[in-house]
Amino acid sequence: MTDKLSHIDAGGNAVMVDISDKADTTRIAIAKARVLMSAQTAKLIADRGHKKGDVLGIAQLAGIMGAKKTPDLIPLCHPLPLTSVTVDLELADDVDGVDITATCKTTGKTGVEMEALTAASVAALTVFDMCKAVDKAMQITDIRVTRKEGGKSGTFIAD
Amino acid sequence: MTDKLSHIDAGGNAVMVDISDKADTTRIAIAKARVLMSAQTAKLIADRGHKKGDVLGIAQLAGIMGAKKTPDLIPLCHPLPLTSVTVDLELADDVDGVDITATCKTTGKTGVEMEALTAASVAALTVFDMCKAVDKAMQITDIRVTRKEGGKSGTFIAD
Amino acid sequence: MTDKLSHIDAGGNAVMVDISDKADTTRIAIAKARVLMSAQTAKLIADRGHKKGDVLGIAQLAGIMGAKKTPDLIPLCHPLPLTSVTVDLELADDVDGVDITATCKTTGKTGVEMEALTAASVAALTVFDMCKAVDKAMQITDIRVTRKEGGKSGTFIAD
Amino acid sequence: MTDKLSHIDAGGNAVMVDISDKADTTRIAIAKARVLMSAQTAKLIADRGHKKGDVLGIAQLAGIMGAKKTPDLIPLCHPLPLTSVTVDLELADDVDGVDITATCKTTGKTGVEMEALTAASVAALTVFDMCKAVDKAMQITDIRVTRKEGGKSGTFIAD
Amino acid sequence: MTDKLSHIDAGGNAVMVDISDKADTTRIAIAKARVLMSAQTAKLIADRGHKKGDVLGIAQLAGIMGAKKTPDLIPLCHPLPLTSVTVDLELADDVDGVDITATCKTTGKTGVEMEALTAASVAALTVFDMCKAVDKAMQITDIRVTRKEGGKSGTFIAD
Amino acid sequence: MTDKLSHIDAGGNAVMVDISDKADTTRIAIAKARVLMSAQTAKLIADRGHKKGDVLGIAQLAGIMGAKKTPDLIPLCHPLPLTSVTVDLELADDVDGVDITATCKTTGKTGVEMEALTAASVAALTVFDMCKAVDKAMQITDIRVTRKEGGKSGTFIAD
Repeated sequence: MTDKLSHIDAGGNAVMVDISDKADTTRIAIAKARVLMSAQTAKLIADRGHKKGDVLGIAQLAGIMGAKKTPDLIPLCHPLPLTSVTVDLELADDVDGVDITATCKTTGKTGVEMEALTAASVAALTVFDMCKAVDKAMQITDIRVTRKEGGKSGTFIAD
Repeated sequence: MTDKLSHIDAGGNAVMVDISDKADTTRIAIAKARVLMSAQTAKLIADRGHKKGDVLGIAQLAGIMGAKKTPDLIPLCHPLPLTSVTVDLELADDVDGVDITATCKTTGKTGVEMEALTAASVAALTVFDMCKAVDKAMQITDIRVTRKEGGKSGTFIAD
Repeated sequence: MTDKLSHIDAGGNAVMVDISDKADTTRIAIAKARVLMSAQTAKLIADRGHKKGDVLGIAQLAGIMGAKKTPDLIPLCHPLPLTSVTVDLELADDVDGVDITATCKTTGKTGVEMEALTAASVAALTVFDMCKAVDKAMQITDIRVTRKEGGKSGTFIAD
Repeated sequence: MTDKLSHIDAGGNAVMVDISDKADTTRIAIAKARVLMSAQTAKLIADRGHKKGDVLGIAQLAGIMGAKKTPDLIPLCHPLPLTSVTVDLELADDVDGVDITATCKTTGKTGVEMEALTAASVAALTVFDMCKAVDKAMQITDIRVTRKEGGKSGTFIAD
Repeated sequence: MTDKLSHIDAGGNAVMVDISDKADTTRIAIAKARVLMSAQTAKLIADRGHKKGDVLGIAQLAGIMGAKKTPDLIPLCHPLPLTSVTVDLELADDVDGVDITATCKTTGKTGVEMEALTAASVAALTVFDMCKAVDKAMQITDIRVTRKEGGKSGTFIAD
Repeated sequence: MTDKLSHIDAGGNAVMVDISDKADTTRIAIAKARVLMSAQTAKLIADRGHKKGDVLGIAQLAGIMGAKKTPDLIPLCHPLPLTSVTVDLELADDVDGVDITATCKTTGKTGVEMEALTAASVAALTVFDMCKAVDKAMQITDIRVTRKEGGKSGTFIAD
């Protein structure tokens, strides 16, 4: 790991890092997020459960579409042809809340952590939007990368 | 406050809530987020400080632009003519991290909480992107609404 | 009704019609579409029925988001602050297929037919995408405006 | 051909299908659409004929640009580097209407049917928009895939 | 006219200026641009003249669509409901080149200079794209605001 | 170099040129632009110099993000996975103004001149936006390609 901010050059200029000479390899990244809410809100989500129109299904789709928007949102991210995006949401079993896991893949010259983080964040924001009429005090927390594979820096695992 | 999810109708269909008959009033929302990082990463950010090309300045701009993308990202959000967006980022004084505050305004028929939350989230994701070459274990936390003014439901204040 | 193409001027130039002096009134438009498919495909959709993750729920959300993209897609459409979008999908009772109804509203200077037609079209395309692995011979038909209210030209009703 | 909906997994979750391990091959898809209109409207289009500013030329350009928007519109579509898009529009010779043919190509891991269908649909919607001041009763019909080449499932031909 | 940069606050932060308390008035802006090219290139454009598929017609449409993208492109621009966009292109009579004039209108709280400048710039870039296979040495020049009406600062006229 | 407009076919139809059979090679393009302004405006920019929140830093970021929008803006441009974008801005030493240089790279089937030109143009428009409150008479000039490498047509150098 380096000790320099890769996106700012010696003169203080923002740069989209030059990846022209990097190899195309399979890249995988997994990111997580959690939405904390009142017991009542968690119950409202649970009650829709596996029925049509559930909060979690809508947030899942928003997360998948959000992954595709990453280079539009994050200024120095490269545009990437994502080959797989999955977003899973489930009610947490230890707190009142929703746990989100996003997995992105590509075959390319740079990693997909930002795509996975963006997918998880947009899914979390959508849960917030769907529930804010009943609960304005929700919090989105613990957005982080838990796994990253591929590329020169090798595999990173956290949790 | 209601006890129903406003974005799903009785038949389980997702709906963009009909706001046609709501009054145009001034709406303000403030949202916050925090990015936790290693002491070394926080120091790298601090060292660029008030110079050109700092991480916080780039994230700030990304947050402002992100607010304008809210209806593209959040499926059931209404498109809104934002009249003001400010995003402030500063190094936290109690932990190694960055604190983000986003404030959005509009004169319209619905609130701007989602715009403020999206601005704060995109700014946080951009801090992550700028620093991920030196610190893969960062966490984005405490994304929440701290103030909401305007509209029928009145003023909401949290912290 | 006029007998001239409003979007092309006397010199053959494309124009976004000047609506600056038109009054802000409530505008409503309803558009419909139908996706024809094999009996087997219709049965696969019906089997998921009111469960989570059904084809119709995903297409519904895509249609709502599609309505917001109208001015990006249709060159001479004005950008509009939509105040309501609903998209309904149901299995047709007279053929093997899905019937789609999209309703858009705004308070503005021009109508929302194109938004309703775009919502219905994007929902239909999404049904196609979800089912194309099992049925490549589907057809999208009967995309049309069935109701338009508001503005100088008054109410239009068809079916 | 499979008998399962490829975009929904066993648990009812929407997924962007994982194409990471598929080969890059040349993919071609052709889609068609038809816009039905009054004889008077068809005549107005014909009268502009091969002059500058014709309805068909504007719709053609909108269709080409629409193809590039496909992954933004269709939730579970992969982003793809299109290598060719052509859209042809001509007055139908058997009815009062416009016939549209869109052809898309890529070298990639998945097909371009949705891109061709989206191009044809957006071109058709643009014809509608250009003519709706003179004819509100138009219909867009017969949107379908007529040819698909490349990939594991081989060549599909219809029409 | 002020002597301060309105988009940067005292602390060096970028801000989207707060226009919440400004009145809604009619705003008009006109911007111009010129594309300089070889005599041969200008002749190729002239030869297509008023026929279908001319370079100028395609650039005109791109300019109109570009105006709608302004808040996506210019970080601190407010989103605005444009009520009119026209873009005119003609061969210059004093040099080998194309002259572009873009006019934008809105009823809103801030001006539309950036929309007119963006329309003119995107139209000019599109002329460049259409002709670059025959002429790589083209230049886009003289992009400027020639007229601005509405708002507190009154009418500005240049040329 | 050809003497035909590559984006219009024999029948006057706009086409996105078919690049399916072209080889993937490394492509580089450099474009320049200049913003002319009053001495007072140039001094305001210089005074912020290397501090946080400078005009040039914000325009730089806008230019980088603008490059990624090229296929959305220029109708017949192919979508491309850019592997590098840099945008440099500095005060001109021979006039009151800002000089902009944008460099884009990709490994692909077509060149990146339009991406470099778009980056330079959007950066220039952003300088204009940031300074227009103090100087409405600015001009953007000299937008041109100064270098192009890669592809069948070989290296082009201008200045």
